[in-house]
Amino acid sequence: MRSAFREQVGALGTGIAGLCDLSGRAMQHATHALLNADLTVAEEVLGRHEELTYRCAQVETDAFTILALQAPVAGDLRAVLSALKNVADAERMGVLALHVAKIARRRHPRRAVPDEVSCDVADMGRIAVRIGNDVTDVVLNNDSGKAAQLALDDEAMDDLHRHLFTVVIDPDWPHGTAAAVDITLLSRYFERFADHAVDIAGRVIYQSTGAHA
Amino acid sequence: MRSAFREQVGALGTGIAGLCDLSGRAMQHATHALLNADLTVAEEVLGRHEELTYRCAQVETDAFTILALQAPVAGDLRAVLSALKNVADAERMGVLALHVAKIARRRHPRRAVPDEVSCDVADMGRIAVRIGNDVTDVVLNNDSGKAAQLALDDEAMDDLHRHLFTVVIDPDWPHGTAAAVDITLLSRYFERFADHAVDIAGRVIYQSTGAHA
Repeated sequence: MRSAFREQVGALGTGIAGLCDLSGRAMQHATHALLNADLTVAEEVLGRHEELTYRCAQVETDAFTILALQAPVAGDLRAVLSALKNVADAERMGVLALHVAKIARRRHPRRAVPDEVSCDVADMGRIAVRIGNDVTDVVLNNDSGKAAQLALDDEAMDDLHRHLFTVVIDPDWPHGTAAAVDITLLSRYFERFADHAVDIAGRVIYQSTGAHA
Repeated sequence: MRSAFREQVGALGTGIAGLCDLSGRAMQHATHALLNADLTVAEEVLGRHEELTYRCAQVETDAFTILALQAPVAGDLRAVLSALKNVADAERMGVLALHVAKIARRRHPRRAVPDEVSCDVADMGRIAVRIGNDVTDVVLNNDSGKAAQLALDDEAMDDLHRHLFTVVIDPDWPHGTAAAVDITLLSRYFERFADHAVDIAGRVIYQSTGAHA
């Protein structure tokens, strides 16, 4: 039973890595849609979101089944509860990608992002994609090196978030409040996406090493 | 053991109601600080947040203990896992109150909210406080009437959120992008606060009646 339990918890991890991957790819496509005012891609992100919701429910059900049938205690119980929290974070990452795609759709055929900040927003998107890949690796392989990289990327994301904030509230910002509001929300979506990934990675590393990432 | 289990799950509910109440009061004080540029109250909200974090961890530990010692299955297991999700939502509500207090502090001694929208923001604050009270009641008493009221308040909050969005992106908005950015973020914090309360109430009603709220 012990090894069956390990296998089942391992399968949970694989499921969660799949959710992280799916959310990361959603953010990649949403960022593309945003920066290129690409309505087709934005609609694709919106259309594919249901798959994430469905797969989250599947992984939750798997965790539930393990708890019900195996009644794990101590560290094993903690591992399953930690997996459930990871599902919630991965699902939220997908929702944030969805929000980015919605802004792209709302402003179409215009681009929501003025040229002046498109490099910063593109950087946020690139970092988010790397974070999505890294958290997937951390979940699959307990890779603490990737977790450390992810923490650095989260700091870079926070820096960009603060920077964009100062750019849009500058009295000389020439693009009006509508664009400022879009950038504020987008910046917050990217920053929260990174936060959730950091939370997942932190839990995985803690589960595997007992140390906080 | 059966009745011991019921008692322990009941105690979890009481704990979660306490967290909802704490988060609701934090939002009440944060809104006061915001609308009155009251730095003292804003600092109090920030200072008290640790208590919420600590009490969330306590309720989580209680849930963990029930799972480890009682190994519940089926509906009982679902009740405990649902409680764990409620803790996460209640904690997030407190964090959102914290964010409101931080904006009040950041803009002090000025008021972050221009007169033009202070009634709307005050409405959001009032609704948030009622939502905090209602979700506390729902958790304590499975009160489906309060859950229905909460759903209506959530709709009212969404309406205000959309309305404020149109106000700040209006080309005639006279208060500059800095104020628009503050209002955008504040409006999102209030709206998310309501969403989390709705999620909690939905789970509680579903647990008690099997019907979606």
